[in-house]
Amino acid sequence: METKGLLKEGERLDDLECDGLRLIQHPEKFCFGMDAVLLSSFARADKTHRVIDLGTGTGVIPILLSSKTRAKEIVGLEIQTDMADMASRSVQFNGLQERIRIVSGDLRESKTLFSPGEFHVVTANPPYMKENSGLLNPADALSLARHEVCCNIEDLSAAAAYLLGENGRFFLVHRPNRLIDIITSMKKHRLEPKRMTFVHPYVWKAPNLVLIEALKGGGSFLKVEEPLIVYESPGVYTSRILEKYGK
Amino acid sequence: METKGLLKEGERLDDLECDGLRLIQHPEKFCFGMDAVLLSSFARADKTHRVIDLGTGTGVIPILLSSKTRAKEIVGLEIQTDMADMASRSVQFNGLQERIRIVSGDLRESKTLFSPGEFHVVTANPPYMKENSGLLNPADALSLARHEVCCNIEDLSAAAAYLLGENGRFFLVHRPNRLIDIITSMKKHRLEPKRMTFVHPYVWKAPNLVLIEALKGGGSFLKVEEPLIVYESPGVYTSRILEKYGK
Repeated sequence: METKGLLKEGERLDDLECDGLRLIQHPEKFCFGMDAVLLSSFARADKTHRVIDLGTGTGVIPILLSSKTRAKEIVGLEIQTDMADMASRSVQFNGLQERIRIVSGDLRESKTLFSPGEFHVVTANPPYMKENSGLLNPADALSLARHEVCCNIEDLSAAAAYLLGENGRFFLVHRPNRLIDIITSMKKHRLEPKRMTFVHPYVWKAPNLVLIEALKGGGSFLKVEEPLIVYESPGVYTSRILEKYGK
Repeated sequence: METKGLLKEGERLDDLECDGLRLIQHPEKFCFGMDAVLLSSFARADKTHRVIDLGTGTGVIPILLSSKTRAKEIVGLEIQTDMADMASRSVQFNGLQERIRIVSGDLRESKTLFSPGEFHVVTANPPYMKENSGLLNPADALSLARHEVCCNIEDLSAAAAYLLGENGRFFLVHRPNRLIDIITSMKKHRLEPKRMTFVHPYVWKAPNLVLIEALKGGGSFLKVEEPLIVYESPGVYTSRILEKYGK
C-alpha cells in the first residue's frame, strides 16, 4: 500500500502482527507496549456496541479492537493534537475509517464532546510510570508526568461513568500498586469491578500490570482470574500469552 | 503429656506439625484448614506486640502465631462458648497460658470487652462458604451460614479499626470474590490495604483465597505479591508453600 504522504518526518510504520494491521509510531514519542495488546484482548464488545478508548495515543487500541471484536463503532479520544493526527492517519492507512473515528479532545471535557451513556464499552490504557518496562527515557518521563497530572484515575472513572449506559463495561489496564485508589474511584462512580487479571512477568514475580473489567451498576461479586504469566524464561513467552493474547 | 481430662467426648488431639504444637478438634464441628495456616504465616508481629484473633474458633491461629512470631500476648476472641472452651484447653495442653488468652465473646461487642487501640495486630480467618474445600457438609453449611449472619466483613473491619492503635495492622484471609466489599469496608474504617497475596490451587487456576494486610491510617499504595501456588500437581505441594508457609 502507498505510504507516501501518510508518514511524517521521524515516523515509522510498524506491523501490529494482527490481521496485517499497521500502526504509525514516532520512536522518540510514545510507542505502544504490551499493556495495550493485553487490554485489547481482555476487552469484550459485541457487534451492536459503540466503544470509546480514552487517551488513545497512537490509536493502537481502537485498531486492535477492530480486529479482535466485532464492535460497530470505535472512537479514540486523544488530547494531544499531533498524536490524534498520527492515529487518524493510521486508521486511514488500514482503511478503517468506517469503524474507527479519532476525536481530538480532553477526556475531562467528555460532557461537552459526547452525550451521556452513548457508549456500551469504554477502554483506557492511561499513562503511568512504567517501572522495569525498558521504555522509559527522560523525554518519556516528562511526558508521562505531565499526563499523570492531566488524566488521573478519578478523571478516568468520572468520564467512563458519564459515557457508559447502564450495564456498560469499563476495561482498564493499570499498575497493581494503584489498585485501591482505582477500586475506590470506580465504586464512587457506580462502576463495580467484576473481573480482574494480574499480569506477572514470571510466575515468581509480583504483578506489574492489572486488567480490570467494571460493570456500571453491577453487584458486588468479583472474579479474580488465574494469573497471566508473560514469560516462561527470559525471551520465551508462555503458551497462554501466545494463545490467548496473541503475538 | 497427659491428655486425660483435657479431651471431651468426640474430640481428638491433632498434630499442628509446627514446633510440636497440638490442637484439640472435634471432627463433627469445624476443623481448621489451609487458610488458617497461610494466615498465621502471612501475619507479622514483633515481640512488643499485643495481638488479637477475631473469631478464633479452635484457637489454631493464636497457637500457630505463638510459634511463628514473638508476639508478647495473643488474645483469641470466640463467640461460641464450646469452641472457646476447646481453644482454652488446647492452650493449656501446649503450656501457652502465659502468652495466649482465650476470651469468650462477640466481636461486635468489642467496645465492651476491650479498650480502643489496645492491640498492635488483629488477625481474622472468618467463616465463609468454602467452595471446593472438601470440608463442607450439611452441618457445616448451617453453622457457616449462621456465622456469616453474625460476623460479616463490615463487623470485622469495624472491630479491627476499634481494637488497633494508629499504624496497627489487620491481617485477613478471605475469598477473592468478596474483595471489593472488603476493600470498601476497610477504607471506610481507615484500614488501608498495603499488601495482598492471591492463593491459587494451581498456577492455571483462579485464586480461591486472598491474604490482605491493612495498615490503620496508611497511605494508598498497595503491594500485590507474587501468586502463591499451592500444588505443583495433585497431592504435590510447591516448594514455595513448603518453604514459606510450611512447618
